[in-house]
Amino acid sequence: MSSSVSFLGTGAMGSALAGASATGGRTVTVWNRDRTKADDLAGVTVADSPADAIRASDVVVVCLLDHASVHAVLDPVAHAIRGRHVVNVTTTTPAEARALADWTRNLGADYLDGGVMAVPELIGTPAGEVLYSGSAEVFDAHRGLLESWCRAEYLGFDAGAAALYDLALLAGMYSMFAGFFHGAAMVGTAGVSATEFAGRATPWLQAMADSLTDFAAVVDAGDYGAAGQQSLYFSDPRYIVTASRDAGVRTDLIDAVRALVLRQIDAGHGADGFARVIESFRGAA
Amino acid sequence: MSSSVSFLGTGAMGSALAGASATGGRTVTVWNRDRTKADDLAGVTVADSPADAIRASDVVVVCLLDHASVHAVLDPVAHAIRGRHVVNVTTTTPAEARALADWTRNLGADYLDGGVMAVPELIGTPAGEVLYSGSAEVFDAHRGLLESWCRAEYLGFDAGAAALYDLALLAGMYSMFAGFFHGAAMVGTAGVSATEFAGRATPWLQAMADSLTDFAAVVDAGDYGAAGQQSLYFSDPRYIVTASRDAGVRTDLIDAVRALVLRQIDAGHGADGFARVIESFRGAA
Ligand SMILES: NC(=O)c1ccc[n+]([C@@H]2O[C@H](COP(=O)([O-])OP(=O)(O)OC[C@H]3O[C@@H](n4cnc5c(N)ncnc54)[C@H](OP(=O)(O)O)[C@@H]3O)[C@@H](O)[C@H]2O)c1
Ligand SMILES: NC(=O)c1ccc[n+]([C@@H]2O[C@H](COP(=O)([O-])OP(=O)(O)OC[C@H]3O[C@@H](n4cnc5c(N)ncnc54)[C@H](OP(=O)(O)O)[C@@H]3O)[C@@H](O)[C@H]2O)c1
Repeated sequence: MSSSVSFLGTGAMGSALAGASATGGRTVTVWNRDRTKADDLAGVTVADSPADAIRASDVVVVCLLDHASVHAVLDPVAHAIRGRHVVNVTTTTPAEARALADWTRNLGADYLDGGVMAVPELIGTPAGEVLYSGSAEVFDAHRGLLESWCRAEYLGFDAGAAALYDLALLAGMYSMFAGFFHGAAMVGTAGVSATEFAGRATPWLQAMADSLTDFAAVVDAGDYGAAGQQSLYFSDPRYIVTASRDAGVRTDLIDAVRALVLRQIDAGHGADGFARVIESFRGAA
Repeated sequence: MSSSVSFLGTGAMGSALAGASATGGRTVTVWNRDRTKADDLAGVTVADSPADAIRASDVVVVCLLDHASVHAVLDPVAHAIRGRHVVNVTTTTPAEARALADWTRNLGADYLDGGVMAVPELIGTPAGEVLYSGSAEVFDAHRGLLESWCRAEYLGFDAGAAALYDLALLAGMYSMFAGFFHGAAMVGTAGVSATEFAGRATPWLQAMADSLTDFAAVVDAGDYGAAGQQSLYFSDPRYIVTASRDAGVRTDLIDAVRALVLRQIDAGHGADGFARVIESFRGAA
């Protein structure tokens, strides 16, 4: 099984996945709406239609822009996917992934959802990872294929689990990126280049990321008052707000971070550890 | 020089710095408002008053709560600091650091400001760093002392530079921490523990922090349209907002992150790379 594989979508990510699959010695068939993007790919056969691509292999990888484009491509050829293994690595919300799983199952196909934690350049290397959830049968049957892309991890039957995890990791990433740009804008007002700042910020953030495990232990133990933590009072980023304003740097981001801290302080928890900030996301005070 | 050193403030950080100084073989004198916190420290002499502590050494390290507490301690003994080297590692804004530098200089003392990028447990190890700015003479004269605490870097004459840099790095850290808690809250709704999430989020964020150098290069080159970047359209974290809302997780933080992206898209820059987000902090559209 899975010596042949078809791809719907050869954008930046689909091309990388199809290329890694071909390098792995598989028979690869691809279809892309704009055929010129598919014609350049080495070692693959370009199908004339989505239906042709689906018929060519028993596993069909879908890598399109979003949920709407998946339906735009699959709806007209719904009859063709019966009996196929569908691996959808298009970014969607968990609810959309669950809806696609139900839809394909009703058509007699098996559905595995994937969240790609990598840029195209990392595909074919072990530095990237794809998180999967949905059909365990599909995951097990095509493990070799999936591992030809990058590390592969199965998170369970809920087709929405991979997307939830994917987006949770991205929430951390985008928040970190935004915080980096805030800092770069601050030191930029004193003539420090972003490159110099990155040289210090990168190892600093990497070192600080090591403390996430300690925060997590406090969250899981459910005792925000445990000894040895820095308090919410201590962690109030008020100095960052003032210094940013003084330097003419917009405070919208740090205001939002600070509001998470103040919500807990205002509810009387200022002496608790910083980990209590998770309660500001849970909606509790 | 600097075989003796005095400390004003032996809270968590002051105690750690005084302890590392004593371990380094120096004669250490300390004063703390609540004397019981100073009495427990090994290898130090406890002074009866701030003036006594200041008189005991030609370098005086100030490690108090905030700018107001520095003035509360120093104002009554302003006459005593003439001719002293003052190293203030109390967290302040850049403007407060500059004001303290002017104030001490007017009293005939030399001022070095420090931003401590470490928790007390890291003092005495090379894992922490203190950024300094202000008097180069003070930095050079006491380099051995400063390096007995942790890595020491001098950023220039502007007494506010260390605080600006310190707070810029903290802006990145707090934003990353907040994003981690957002993600932990998201996967928590599917029964994933914060500890399991941290096990994946920590290496993920550390790997993603390596891309800050690339963003910085784009910022410094000033060409947000350069090839090979992920666009602002692509980076719009709309899926995180929807998935969070679906899961009952508050979106205030990711809304603020998203607003930085949308501000640039709305201004017609959606095809530019993500690095353009720094312009949302600079106040430009
Ligand atoms: N690139 C990354 O770093 C990365 C990382 C993780 C996840 N992903 C996810 O992977 C998926 C693909 O991303 P990508 O980087 O490959 O994007 P991309 O280069 O923009 O490619 C988008 C693909 O979707 C197709 N498409 C869009 N709308 C369509 C429609 N209505 N009907 C048919 N085809 C349509 C495009 O076809 P045309 O060529 O004809 O326009 C193209 O094949 C996205 O969901 C993305 O979030 C990407
Ligand atoms: N702890 C860290 O991880 C860390 C990291 C980087 C920077 N810093 C900075 O280091 C400084 C000290 O932090 P810390 O952790 O040592 O705090 P801390 O344990 O709370 O100690 C605060 C110190 O300030 C003194 N103080 C407060 N108000 C005073 C007043 N009005 N008059 C006289 N003394 C006063 C306290 O004296 P009493 O003992 O009499 O109350 C105590 O010595 C802060 O600016 C902090 O931001 C700390």
